[in-house]
Amino acid sequence: MTQHPTLRLAHELLARASITPADEGCQTVIAERLRALGFSTETMVFEDTTNLWARTQSDKPVFCFAGHTDVVPTGDPLSWRFPPFQPTEHDGYLYARGAADMKGSLAAMIVATERFMAEHTALPFDIAYLITSDEEGPFINGTKRVIETLQQRQQNIDWCIVGEPSSTHTIGDIVKNGRRGSLSLSLTIIGQQGHVAYPHLADNPVHRFAPLLQRLVSEHWDNGNAFFPATTFQISNIHAGTGAGNVIPGELQVEANFRFSTEVTAEQLQQRVEALIAEAGITAKCQWKLNGEAFVTEAGVLLDIVQQSISHCTGQLPQLSTAGGTSDGRFIAPTGAQVVELGPVNATIHKVNECVKITDLIALTDIYYQVLKGFYAQLR
Amino acid sequence: MTQHPTLRLAHELLARASITPADEGCQTVIAERLRALGFSTETMVFEDTTNLWARTQSDKPVFCFAGHTDVVPTGDPLSWRFPPFQPTEHDGYLYARGAADMKGSLAAMIVATERFMAEHTALPFDIAYLITSDEEGPFINGTKRVIETLQQRQQNIDWCIVGEPSSTHTIGDIVKNGRRGSLSLSLTIIGQQGHVAYPHLADNPVHRFAPLLQRLVSEHWDNGNAFFPATTFQISNIHAGTGAGNVIPGELQVEANFRFSTEVTAEQLQQRVEALIAEAGITAKCQWKLNGEAFVTEAGVLLDIVQQSISHCTGQLPQLSTAGGTSDGRFIAPTGAQVVELGPVNATIHKVNECVKITDLIALTDIYYQVLKGFYAQLR
Repeated sequence: MTQHPTLRLAHELLARASITPADEGCQTVIAERLRALGFSTETMVFEDTTNLWARTQSDKPVFCFAGHTDVVPTGDPLSWRFPPFQPTEHDGYLYARGAADMKGSLAAMIVATERFMAEHTALPFDIAYLITSDEEGPFINGTKRVIETLQQRQQNIDWCIVGEPSSTHTIGDIVKNGRRGSLSLSLTIIGQQGHVAYPHLADNPVHRFAPLLQRLVSEHWDNGNAFFPATTFQISNIHAGTGAGNVIPGELQVEANFRFSTEVTAEQLQQRVEALIAEAGITAKCQWKLNGEAFVTEAGVLLDIVQQSISHCTGQLPQLSTAGGTSDGRFIAPTGAQVVELGPVNATIHKVNECVKITDLIALTDIYYQVLKGFYAQLR
Repeated sequence: MTQHPTLRLAHELLARASITPADEGCQTVIAERLRALGFSTETMVFEDTTNLWARTQSDKPVFCFAGHTDVVPTGDPLSWRFPPFQPTEHDGYLYARGAADMKGSLAAMIVATERFMAEHTALPFDIAYLITSDEEGPFINGTKRVIETLQQRQQNIDWCIVGEPSSTHTIGDIVKNGRRGSLSLSLTIIGQQGHVAYPHLADNPVHRFAPLLQRLVSEHWDNGNAFFPATTFQISNIHAGTGAGNVIPGELQVEANFRFSTEVTAEQLQQRVEALIAEAGITAKCQWKLNGEAFVTEAGVLLDIVQQSISHCTGQLPQLSTAGGTSDGRFIAPTGAQVVELGPVNATIHKVNECVKITDLIALTDIYYQVLKGFYAQLR
């Protein structure tokens, strides 16, 4: 029985225990395949992270496949049906850590590219790959730094498919055409410690915080838009107190997070919160962390081609969504690239017994291939 | 050089390392001295706590001296000028853990009683002692249980001096004629844990708490009165969150404490808080702990005699105060007794190098003696 080339490559990648930030040679396998097609490849190592930037050699507009070779930890391997780094086919599914998130997608991209380039020459666009080994971790030395490097070289990406597992029930049912922004706030409110019997000699930071808390949780940040729900603010952690019941705490620590639409920027949210703090007359220290600005890819060449390709291969048009967590698309979109996420069904990602339907991997290869053909037809 | 009998007895008690709930035989020493005067004595052991109830044998109105033989821990003994359980006289002060809080007072009471009873017979009132070894600890098995036992026997106390170190600068400058009540609340607000990216699937208890917090900290509980400042509410501890920045907490834990005047009761405060919670429409669990109702001893026989006695011995009238923490007076006052606290200067209590001025101990003995004489004159 001959194995489909996507499945064969997926096995090869999945056998490598590349838990973040390890790559375990996955990118070497990919780079060799791409060099065989005439790509120039460049490995960018930043601290503990290995990244691969590969592209065909011209100065035409760039279509990029983006993804990651790292996977999340397995948890107790004994609780898996099959050893997590021994990819195993069973009942039509391929089981392994990373099967859906996202070594299956990487295999599908490569095989689609190989097939497409075997059939087409004198391409009217460049094909590129941006692969990292730190998407699941602190994401400091991965896609973010590769993009910074490319920007310094004035190397742009015009269109990008991130192979993240966007599908929910069937392959291609959902395409993510953006993501909400994520902004974290660490707020320290300074009071004055004291004895509960002598409150006039103390300054309770929890009491100080009361009107501000009420303002923050009742604030209407925006209305969202066609692509995004309204911006949300959530307190994740709040702590004050020595443990003793008779001591007024000297400090209150609050952690909060915004998930925000494209109707506001991180900077605007910061300014609004800091204005509320000033209004409340509170002595507070704010530490902000921007995990990613919101981005959206509206109607355009990329979305058109992706939708047609999915429809061609599955008979169904995908739904567009910006829901869920963050992805490396947030680092690519701000450069002006059109970015969508399109990959396998995400039901088992980050769980034990992660798996992908084998026919979905084949269909995904076909979809990626159709996308390349779509760009060829569009730009020729 | 002959040592003053109060000083001699203080040395004897202070040499015993009776850290709560240990008594280390202090009460045996006291009981023997009282039995020699004709008191009947009864040791009441409750769990880890030793208590002494002693009284002269008649059924006349009862004047009681109350106090405790336990002391707080020393901290690092090496940071003391003198070993904390080797009472040492130096520069006119007696140093030892418990010198001011309150073995010095116990010695003064006994010696005052001895002197008074040597001079007076056919007393028109009974003298009693209520001594515990758990005033500084959880105060569950101490004065509280002795009082419960006495109540069951219909044994009342009419007037009581608690020997707590009430004085601030000079002996007898302050008499505590009451204490604020103390009521603790442990509040658990139940929400629904979830991911910060999907707040509609969660229910953030910190957000739920916001309007209630605002109400609680801005509520005006009462105006106080001539003896008490206004009732205060303070949050001592607040905690929610898993530590992760992307998780909405499922539960919020809040600890708070009321210090309240005689204008409200603990029950009224509970009802008001529970009404605010109901108004806020929050699912919450309240655990209340009444540490002591507020009490006050207004003008009357006890205060008159105490004020005159202090004036007689110091030339100054004391100030009356209800400020500060709690004392065992809170367990005695609710039985209907008039209760005041009168003892040494409290500047060094609970600290290293605890000490009492030797002349203050002699003066305190005189004041207690004058009080007994005052009752004799009053009731004869």
